[in-house]
Amino acid sequence: MLAGPVHYPGTYAAGCYNRLLSTVAGRSVENEDMVNLPNWLPLRYRICPADAAPGPWLSPDHPYLTEHRQTLDLRHGTLTRWSVYEDEAGRRLTVEQCRLVHMGEPHLAALRTCFASDGWTGAVEVESGIDGAVRNAGVARYRGLADQHLTGWETGAEQPDAVWLSCRTLDSDIRIALAARTRVPAGHNGVARPQLSALRAFHTLVVPLVPGSPAVVDKTVALYTSRDPAIESPRHTAVDAVALAPHFRQLRAAHRRAWENLWRQAKLEVPGESGRILRLHLFHVLQTLSPHTAELDVGVPARGLHGEAYRGHVFWDELFVLPFLNLHLPQVSRALLDYRYRRLPAACHAAREAGRTGAMYPWQSAGDGREETQQLHLNPRSGRWLPDHSRLQHHVGSAIAYNVWQYGQASGDTEFLHTRGAEMLLEIARFWSAAADWDASLGRYRIRGVVGPDEYHDGYPDAAEPGVDDNAYTNVTAAWVLMRALDLCRTLPEPHQRQLFEQLQLAPEEPERWEDVAHRLHVPYHRGVISQFAGYGELAELDWHGYRQRYGDIRRLDRILEAEGDTVNRYQASKQADVLMLGYLFAPSELASVFRRLGYPLDEETWHATVDYYLHRTSHGSTLSALVHAWVLARVHRPDAWTYCEEALTGDVADVQGGTTAEGIHLGAMAGTLDFVQRGMTGLETRDQALWLDPAPLRELSKFGVRIRYRRHWDIDLRIRAEQVRIAVPASENAAVRVNLRDRSFSLVPGTSRRLDLPGD
Amino acid sequence: MLAGPVHYPGTYAAGCYNRLLSTVAGRSVENEDMVNLPNWLPLRYRICPADAAPGPWLSPDHPYLTEHRQTLDLRHGTLTRWSVYEDEAGRRLTVEQCRLVHMGEPHLAALRTCFASDGWTGAVEVESGIDGAVRNAGVARYRGLADQHLTGWETGAEQPDAVWLSCRTLDSDIRIALAARTRVPAGHNGVARPQLSALRAFHTLVVPLVPGSPAVVDKTVALYTSRDPAIESPRHTAVDAVALAPHFRQLRAAHRRAWENLWRQAKLEVPGESGRILRLHLFHVLQTLSPHTAELDVGVPARGLHGEAYRGHVFWDELFVLPFLNLHLPQVSRALLDYRYRRLPAACHAAREAGRTGAMYPWQSAGDGREETQQLHLNPRSGRWLPDHSRLQHHVGSAIAYNVWQYGQASGDTEFLHTRGAEMLLEIARFWSAAADWDASLGRYRIRGVVGPDEYHDGYPDAAEPGVDDNAYTNVTAAWVLMRALDLCRTLPEPHQRQLFEQLQLAPEEPERWEDVAHRLHVPYHRGVISQFAGYGELAELDWHGYRQRYGDIRRLDRILEAEGDTVNRYQASKQADVLMLGYLFAPSELASVFRRLGYPLDEETWHATVDYYLHRTSHGSTLSALVHAWVLARVHRPDAWTYCEEALTGDVADVQGGTTAEGIHLGAMAGTLDFVQRGMTGLETRDQALWLDPAPLRELSKFGVRIRYRRHWDIDLRIRAEQVRIAVPASENAAVRVNLRDRSFSLVPGTSRRLDLPGD
Repeated sequence: MLAGPVHYPGTYAAGCYNRLLSTVAGRSVENEDMVNLPNWLPLRYRICPADAAPGPWLSPDHPYLTEHRQTLDLRHGTLTRWSVYEDEAGRRLTVEQCRLVHMGEPHLAALRTCFASDGWTGAVEVESGIDGAVRNAGVARYRGLADQHLTGWETGAEQPDAVWLSCRTLDSDIRIALAARTRVPAGHNGVARPQLSALRAFHTLVVPLVPGSPAVVDKTVALYTSRDPAIESPRHTAVDAVALAPHFRQLRAAHRRAWENLWRQAKLEVPGESGRILRLHLFHVLQTLSPHTAELDVGVPARGLHGEAYRGHVFWDELFVLPFLNLHLPQVSRALLDYRYRRLPAACHAAREAGRTGAMYPWQSAGDGREETQQLHLNPRSGRWLPDHSRLQHHVGSAIAYNVWQYGQASGDTEFLHTRGAEMLLEIARFWSAAADWDASLGRYRIRGVVGPDEYHDGYPDAAEPGVDDNAYTNVTAAWVLMRALDLCRTLPEPHQRQLFEQLQLAPEEPERWEDVAHRLHVPYHRGVISQFAGYGELAELDWHGYRQRYGDIRRLDRILEAEGDTVNRYQASKQADVLMLGYLFAPSELASVFRRLGYPLDEETWHATVDYYLHRTSHGSTLSALVHAWVLARVHRPDAWTYCEEALTGDVADVQGGTTAEGIHLGAMAGTLDFVQRGMTGLETRDQALWLDPAPLRELSKFGVRIRYRRHWDIDLRIRAEQVRIAVPASENAAVRVNLRDRSFSLVPGTSRRLDLPGD
Repeated sequence: MLAGPVHYPGTYAAGCYNRLLSTVAGRSVENEDMVNLPNWLPLRYRICPADAAPGPWLSPDHPYLTEHRQTLDLRHGTLTRWSVYEDEAGRRLTVEQCRLVHMGEPHLAALRTCFASDGWTGAVEVESGIDGAVRNAGVARYRGLADQHLTGWETGAEQPDAVWLSCRTLDSDIRIALAARTRVPAGHNGVARPQLSALRAFHTLVVPLVPGSPAVVDKTVALYTSRDPAIESPRHTAVDAVALAPHFRQLRAAHRRAWENLWRQAKLEVPGESGRILRLHLFHVLQTLSPHTAELDVGVPARGLHGEAYRGHVFWDELFVLPFLNLHLPQVSRALLDYRYRRLPAACHAAREAGRTGAMYPWQSAGDGREETQQLHLNPRSGRWLPDHSRLQHHVGSAIAYNVWQYGQASGDTEFLHTRGAEMLLEIARFWSAAADWDASLGRYRIRGVVGPDEYHDGYPDAAEPGVDDNAYTNVTAAWVLMRALDLCRTLPEPHQRQLFEQLQLAPEEPERWEDVAHRLHVPYHRGVISQFAGYGELAELDWHGYRQRYGDIRRLDRILEAEGDTVNRYQASKQADVLMLGYLFAPSELASVFRRLGYPLDEETWHATVDYYLHRTSHGSTLSALVHAWVLARVHRPDAWTYCEEALTGDVADVQGGTTAEGIHLGAMAGTLDFVQRGMTGLETRDQALWLDPAPLRELSKFGVRIRYRRHWDIDLRIRAEQVRIAVPASENAAVRVNLRDRSFSLVPGTSRRLDLPGD
């Protein structure tokens, strides 16, 4: 069922490209080095009848094609294409190709091609190699930008059956080398001839073919870059790697084992169509952020490693990815946090430049961690270039702090939390403290001039300066960050705390101020609901019905209004969840406690009213929005939760935004749907050295299982069946796991399980 | 006292070079890329009297020099040079220079120069910059080898006061860029003129000088390479870094804080001259393997990062370094183990090539982890090139396994031990199992054809094949590795164990064989002592007295005998500790238990006899030998332990091998002396979730203190006073520390201390 749509095979074909991209991701300066790898896939063939001249070169886009199908095997990470050609003389050639980008050996990819003749005798000639003439052409609206990012190509051939191509990226000057070995597995092929040109390195070989005896050609490719450790040179290492690589069967077997192991570590059992989509999402998350990522200096790119949209930039999508990964591949989470840690100096520099202290992480960034958000963007509707203030989304810092804390809680990696994690958390807290100005008339601290997650509102109508004040999401998460920073200070071992304070030159009065700010940040309200920001309630109401009637899809209401000479800043209209994101990040009890500390009421009624309020004022112009709404509505037990869940699930499968999927999957939304099951439906929290559960299954998703890793416990099994929870901890020498299920608390000794009834809601 | 000898300032001057070297260490193939950095230090000056032409360019090697002294401040990591010049007209110029290679900002170095005129008025002209014309000329006997490893130089200047030089390493193609900012701190100097040539980038500036008012010139240098993460390009980043770098005072203050913090984490209080030397050793260890190392892919080079001997190769010296680091900077130990982990595929490949399974780590390696040991070496005495079999020192694998295990025990980093650590440990165990051949006549497994730590014995006299059989050190450590691998298998959480076995394709019968081999490896004995290897007891006795009389220094007895047409293989003569290394690695109780498991008696009497036996048959041709002997003799309470300890302490300070120190300090021996106090004198072990103590203070070293980090406890303080031990655990939220002191066992709650009497021995 999942084979077919052009973008899936495309995605997977890009796996090797992805491997490189993950190496160079974010190395760009001014977006100049969003690199496409030299293409490792080219392999074409032609019919060479014994009694006639060779036919034309064939590939699935040739008119000789009579049948074609392709299958993506998620479990084993292979793509199989099956094609039948028939030439003018009626000779039929069946070609089956299986490709893999190795999950066990991150530098290898392989492609097996089987040829079968239907009644004719002769040979197939195969041309197989590497093409260095690649351009970035995946996103139509970027076509005016530089699309060529490689230079310095060299090609060569190595006896007996390998060719190589090396080049380097234009600006970031990273060397890339690929080597390809093409052989007939029965033995080395005597007639393989290298064909080298400036940008291409190919082999041709002629393989005899008789009916009833298919011929096989295997291509094995290795890719290394100058950023890979423990190598000689990319080129020599790539050539050695293909020379030493085992046969396709062995490669495939090891690749399957690696994938099976990954699926085991991230098992998610959901029945039906939803389960199928979730497994596809999991497949994308795992191939983008695999255990090999732990060895790389990379962040979480918004569009995965699959397409060219957003030019590989890193935004805040890790907020939707790490909470899921923490409970399966903590080493990958750790590496993604290390990526942010290495860019902490850049964030501190940005804060200083802005006249602040602490760390101001960038909204969009690439290699060196500086702010890369565009200053202008185009409204394709009006043709106008408009100022872009999205860099005022300083809440990205809270996302990083949240991940630091959650990772520490889930993994038990105190070493990280007390060193690099502490540095990030404290510097982000410091930034929020510096950003908070005391307003004597309000008797509150205020954070002004920001943009919240809802990018529609980048300022007040007719205001001279961009940004809004007292964005509830920003302020509440800032207060939470300050509280966690204070918690951390309290638990740091004393001698180390002193040293860390000294290193960060943190004066003792700073945490005192944090305490104060965390208690007195302003959160605006209007008409009994939390205001998205100060003054939101005074904005005009939009004629939602009218606009929907007039325009149909109003996801990009901002563009519609601007084209009309109006501005969305005038309206109570949000692109995506903003206030409601709070219900995504925090369990009800935790959210209530942050509000309590701030001295605000947040009873169930207020929250429900707030949810209702924004639900009717949101256009869902971001893929993440449906996810957040599903999550929040499930918690407030709303029957329409499933509608949003379905939208979140089908975001990329059905390409609901109409064309954006081909430009790159939406990794945050994909990971978020997984986490929706894992944490949203189960109410799973990891805090105070325990697992907390508070299941809220939907009618449409009432029976599911997840397998998680919690600290030293691998493969904890958690199953929900409508009114029942079962949790099993596998045998080990570890201590018992403390579990809190709503008001019940118990310990699970490794090697035991427990089944509990859930009171009906 | 420590200022003066040419090699200390040299060492420290090389600090920045070291930073690079640590980045590229081991990137060499066939030793071609042992790189010296472009020199960042050049700064010369000349007297420009108001009433006469400028004098000649001055630096401390100029004949005008009348006074000179230099001081290395270990605590703060600064080198200060004070020079007085007097020209022919009697004008005196006093120059004080303070330099630092920043311990807080790994990319920065700084040099402050203060000029004072004695009675004359005018100016000094200063020329300051970067010199790219460097060659490897530090080791006389390598001068026939390629000594130039840089290429592709570019130079430039940036307004207002910076110059830069970039180049790349010849073979490994790593880009290196340095930028230097030279300014008069009172303000930008208007007359700075860049002077650029192909290989040099300099500034000149003229600074007015009047008596009584010294002038200051500050040089700030930044260095980046293409292997640094989170940068734009090395050149741009270096230029930005010097532009943004704070003033010298601030730089120095932060540098001092970083050093003070390091000293706190690795505090070692030993009184008197020994303490001073130990602090020098600690200084070298900390600047070579600082917290910044944790971000690099580097190993422990035998000669530190200080000189060119052994061309930066990695041997087994980490065995003497990590046990010390584990208890202070576990993140650095972890990174050094990660370095080995990244080269596990190369070690497995080497084993396969040798027809074995598992991991065969190389004796000497560089960047890609392949064996780099020379095939021939020169005996300078005879002028003959001889086959070099030192690559048969497969015991390096046991050193890595030992470090994996010890790191896991000391740090509590189960995540590492159960993943990367387990992979290394199991693959090394597998190699030993494969290397062990069953000998039915002996009823024992044997490991044949190896070289032990004593490199004198690389074969039997007149044997056709190199290597010796049943080297006791090799076999006993192999048995220990197999036992620890089995322990680990037992404690791995079950689902993870299954996955790991599957990944390594470890059949269930393999651990069964390990169990068998660990019980039945052969350890030869002769005349009541453990034999260094099978047949050692039948070798001829050497006329030690005669050779000492004839040659004086017989540390390189192998060369002496070979030059005489004889071979050291014929004699019971060792270059360095071999069997006795067992007493260094294992506490008496642990060693006895390994022997017991092997079915051999190892009572105190046998061990003492063994120690005596080899003590008289060792020439101490390695700097590590004295250390091991001191350690072992201290444990057997021999009064001559101190003699060896003193030799180990003075190895580099007095350059006891006559010239080798200038070619590079002996990092393993230096770290070993620190560990001699930390673990040797205290009997400190970390196992079974507890600290074990069994102090054995020497008369000459009876009062000392160490501060260690143990798992989550920072700064545990341990003090020994002849007959008393005091241990203090600082306040934290951590659990109590379990301590076993000989036959007493107790728990120490954080925030408490305990003082105990030691029974007199």
